[in-house]
Amino acid sequence: MPILSRITGPADLRALDADELEELAREIRAFLVASVSRTGGHLGPNLGVVELTLALHRVFESPRDTIVFDTGHQSYVHKLLTGRSDFTSLRRRGGLSGYPSRAESVHDVVENSHASTALSWADGIAKAYALQGATDRHVAAVIGDGALTGGMAWEALNNIATAQDRRLVLVVNDNGRSYDPTIGGLAHHLDTLRTTRGYENFLAWGKRTLRRSGPPGRLAYDALHGLKKGIKDVVAPQGMFEDLGIKYVGPIDGHDVVATEQALRRAKAFGGPVIVHVITEKGRGYVPAEQDVADRFHAVGQIHPETGLPVAPSRFGWTSVFADEMVAIGRRRSDVVAITAAMLQPVGLAPFAAEFPSRVFDVGIAEQHAVTSAAGMAFAGLHPVVAVYATFLNRAFDQVLMDVALHRAGVTFVLDRAGITGDDGASHNGMWDMAMLRVVPGLRLAAPRDEPTLRDALRAAVDVDDAPSVVRYPKGPLPDALPALDVVDGVDVLAREDGERRVLVVGVGPMAHTAVEVSRLLTAEGVGSTVVDPRWVLPLPSALVKLADEHDHLLVLEDGLVEGGVGAMLGQRCTEAGVATPITSVGIPLGFLDHATRGQIVEALRLRAEDVAHDLLVALRARG
Amino acid sequence: MPILSRITGPADLRALDADELEELAREIRAFLVASVSRTGGHLGPNLGVVELTLALHRVFESPRDTIVFDTGHQSYVHKLLTGRSDFTSLRRRGGLSGYPSRAESVHDVVENSHASTALSWADGIAKAYALQGATDRHVAAVIGDGALTGGMAWEALNNIATAQDRRLVLVVNDNGRSYDPTIGGLAHHLDTLRTTRGYENFLAWGKRTLRRSGPPGRLAYDALHGLKKGIKDVVAPQGMFEDLGIKYVGPIDGHDVVATEQALRRAKAFGGPVIVHVITEKGRGYVPAEQDVADRFHAVGQIHPETGLPVAPSRFGWTSVFADEMVAIGRRRSDVVAITAAMLQPVGLAPFAAEFPSRVFDVGIAEQHAVTSAAGMAFAGLHPVVAVYATFLNRAFDQVLMDVALHRAGVTFVLDRAGITGDDGASHNGMWDMAMLRVVPGLRLAAPRDEPTLRDALRAAVDVDDAPSVVRYPKGPLPDALPALDVVDGVDVLAREDGERRVLVVGVGPMAHTAVEVSRLLTAEGVGSTVVDPRWVLPLPSALVKLADEHDHLLVLEDGLVEGGVGAMLGQRCTEAGVATPITSVGIPLGFLDHATRGQIVEALRLRAEDVAHDLLVALRARG
Repeated sequence: MPILSRITGPADLRALDADELEELAREIRAFLVASVSRTGGHLGPNLGVVELTLALHRVFESPRDTIVFDTGHQSYVHKLLTGRSDFTSLRRRGGLSGYPSRAESVHDVVENSHASTALSWADGIAKAYALQGATDRHVAAVIGDGALTGGMAWEALNNIATAQDRRLVLVVNDNGRSYDPTIGGLAHHLDTLRTTRGYENFLAWGKRTLRRSGPPGRLAYDALHGLKKGIKDVVAPQGMFEDLGIKYVGPIDGHDVVATEQALRRAKAFGGPVIVHVITEKGRGYVPAEQDVADRFHAVGQIHPETGLPVAPSRFGWTSVFADEMVAIGRRRSDVVAITAAMLQPVGLAPFAAEFPSRVFDVGIAEQHAVTSAAGMAFAGLHPVVAVYATFLNRAFDQVLMDVALHRAGVTFVLDRAGITGDDGASHNGMWDMAMLRVVPGLRLAAPRDEPTLRDALRAAVDVDDAPSVVRYPKGPLPDALPALDVVDGVDVLAREDGERRVLVVGVGPMAHTAVEVSRLLTAEGVGSTVVDPRWVLPLPSALVKLADEHDHLLVLEDGLVEGGVGAMLGQRCTEAGVATPITSVGIPLGFLDHATRGQIVEALRLRAEDVAHDLLVALRARG
Repeated sequence: MPILSRITGPADLRALDADELEELAREIRAFLVASVSRTGGHLGPNLGVVELTLALHRVFESPRDTIVFDTGHQSYVHKLLTGRSDFTSLRRRGGLSGYPSRAESVHDVVENSHASTALSWADGIAKAYALQGATDRHVAAVIGDGALTGGMAWEALNNIATAQDRRLVLVVNDNGRSYDPTIGGLAHHLDTLRTTRGYENFLAWGKRTLRRSGPPGRLAYDALHGLKKGIKDVVAPQGMFEDLGIKYVGPIDGHDVVATEQALRRAKAFGGPVIVHVITEKGRGYVPAEQDVADRFHAVGQIHPETGLPVAPSRFGWTSVFADEMVAIGRRRSDVVAITAAMLQPVGLAPFAAEFPSRVFDVGIAEQHAVTSAAGMAFAGLHPVVAVYATFLNRAFDQVLMDVALHRAGVTFVLDRAGITGDDGASHNGMWDMAMLRVVPGLRLAAPRDEPTLRDALRAAVDVDDAPSVVRYPKGPLPDALPALDVVDGVDVLAREDGERRVLVVGVGPMAHTAVEVSRLLTAEGVGSTVVDPRWVLPLPSALVKLADEHDHLLVLEDGLVEGGVGAMLGQRCTEAGVATPITSVGIPLGFLDHATRGQIVEALRLRAEDVAHDLLVALRARG
């Protein structure tokens, strides 16, 4: 990598000529494929923005100018160009984050990996620069066409249009897809823009022709010319962005580094907000990605670099069971429909879509619309299943509360990747769902522990027709089935061990497995226990309070926030019932988790069975 | 009211001729002014939609066709036309809701009064009808231009554009304002559409002229004609809606009932999604409203019908103090800026805006953008104060969590109308904020009890530069100042009463006043107490746990959800510390509150001091 190895910061890029830039782009792609196939990570998106990132760093002077990446998984090239070349521990503890990270570099700004936020960030930064009189500081935001389908992006565009004095360059990185191909009217519009590059030529011809065509033609020309928007804007395909009042430049071939740089330079010089529409290809330059129509190697685990085939088998055990059970439910009930927010494949709805194509709705990266349109469907007699990653439901809290729960709409939410996800960084952990959803009146929530309870929970959830119902499960492989010994008042009893003290161990969802292990370790120390799994934690079964009363100590294990979580809720129920059994709650402490593998985080938080048992024994001894 | 009194349902409208409709519109306006000036309510918005609602009910056959109102405060006329003529107890318990209510009528669908949701609801309903093969059932949604600035509306439009088989009529009720004049690029675009009605005429002329102008002109015409969008769409001012792929009809004079009805009929017959752009005037036909530039009598208390002047003095005591203190802070600190989501007046930012016009940003009905652009401003060195109604912050939970808290951005949120608001119905109560925000890492939240503590809290909040800070206060008059006897480890002690038992009474925010009253009532029964107000409840002062340990019983009073609220949080802290003092939590139970006055709700929930004291004494006696 003769050129890449010489790049220590953005300034080094500015000395390169066009040929060297092309060679550098090749080196970067080779580096990314070799490196990410070893560690896993977001491959396709980064292969698509190599030239664009080179051009950005040649035109804008970061950190004096601010470059903001939406859904920061497209920032690997940016990292390479800003002095971060050690990708060996990407997304592991102590290694590079898979997203921008302010702890890593002054060139990084937005760490949140949720989509559609960058334009709002950029607007805020540009407003501040304008107010401070820093007219020489520019803000560039890079946002995908998929992220433009999110409502926040619209809110930002609407505001940015009013800000003609702000130095804002909005790069629409249009690869025609988010995870899945981008949907909706906007995608259609971008497509129109993309396929009508000839308009500019037509425009010039039209001017000449109309003017030459005698008085009527000239009259027509003058009339057109006199229209408020000007003939150029009427005939050229700038469309809705210009309608909103934002200057549009494009479309530009985002793999032509010279053309991209020129467009960015023009945009930067304009002095007001400009959209630069750049066409790129996700997975560009890597044959397995270019040939993969489904998601162009959006995010991969470890893969063989030549073939793109995974080194380890599929990680999506829970998702597969959901996928399979949804098809079975779909066959039984024609009123059940599915909704995804641009993640048909990752959430496991592809088999359902294949069998019932008219009954699945991809709404784009638009969780709010996913939730509220589901309420509308429920009103009209369907039962929608909205499948999203747990962390993304936070974006539609108000809609779950007001549009679904207030209207007692039978909508089922399936939360994949609930709990600790780890390597995708702080904002991808699904740790808020239970604490957040417990304040939604009427909502029921199941946290299954294995395949049979997942199938069971999903079937029960879609049978709830008068309230929102939720099924949540983690990322990662599916554990072995853990059958109940017994069911007491609707609560599964998983183990009963005699001993001198009697501890009630409540294992929520997959933590039921840890709970059983903890129980064994306690037995070895002479401490008796009962292990239960309520399966449904909202509403919390009153049997738990009764069981708590029959034990000396309560231990609650959950893969979610301790603050306001299931343990806290059980504590509140006990307080209300006058049950004073002491409680130890074990789960995720209030805070943001640094990126690391799930295993590393579980260990660091002392959530492994041996640590939980050890800490509990210490606490029990301290109490005497 | 000779005609109005004959209308028992929508069918009765269809027998009326144009003159009778005009007369009916006059009668409805007279009724609304007379009635709403007695009860209070949303006057301006309803005066603006009289003709539109008449036309809707003549064209669509509710409830077979579904009519959905966004921000349902514009549904009074709809109520009148669907058999609900008794407005005497509007927004009181047992009387009509100020919003659509499914308990009232089969003609009502969406009860949520948060803006921008109607298009998603409508899309969901239309999808269901299409899937069920009910091609003869139409869905009409009415949404204001202000609500279109909300991101959800964009998400819905993007999806609706793909649904050419769905029977959807989207009525954009364009009065150029939400509470305040609508802002942003969209408003500019609507304005362009509104002022260019001549384009249609020009179009016809252009066709003739170009064709007659000999070969070059004809060539030009044919070329234009051959463009994908067609010459009509290029020259006519349909702009961004057509760019998205949604048919546009308008602009229509929304006070011309015949023209509006014609447009709706055309749209209904089209068979796919159509936007009907209707121009209306908020407050139409009521002189005091038409003359009021500020908010056109958006929502009023009791007023004198002739003059429009309020019967009772201003209800906005808390808001006024905030308004005043913000100006003082603004004078002291030039880095403090203010953000409002289309509610400059109601949240009390008008004085700040008057003095610092360049430092206030109205982002439209766009809470997500308000929050995330604030994070951007904080990144660039400003300290933004985002002032919203408490219930509306729910719409930006993810942004508070991921864009502000994760980035440790110094952004202050001021939540007006926190707690029970009452007459605006279930979705306006600000009862979720504390339970929701306690799971945001690093966030600090103050609940002041009176004017001095509000000023103090606001000053302290804007001094927090490394985390989100929140100040929340209720709607309604400001109570008298309640000075502390003493401050113990940062907790205000408001009363100390001797007695046989020692109860620690924690009063959160304005419930501190109730707490002091409860303490007096307990004293009269021989029960001793200490009354404290922590003022800052996030993080909860550890002094409260220590105090709890020194008392026999803990009583927590809060103007928010008991489930997961401050009492629950204090309980969790006590559990963690091994403090076993029993707790009684008093506040709002988990559920949605039916509309009623705040006083009626406080009484029904047994939150009055006499009821709280009585219930506590019963509980204490039961414990023995």
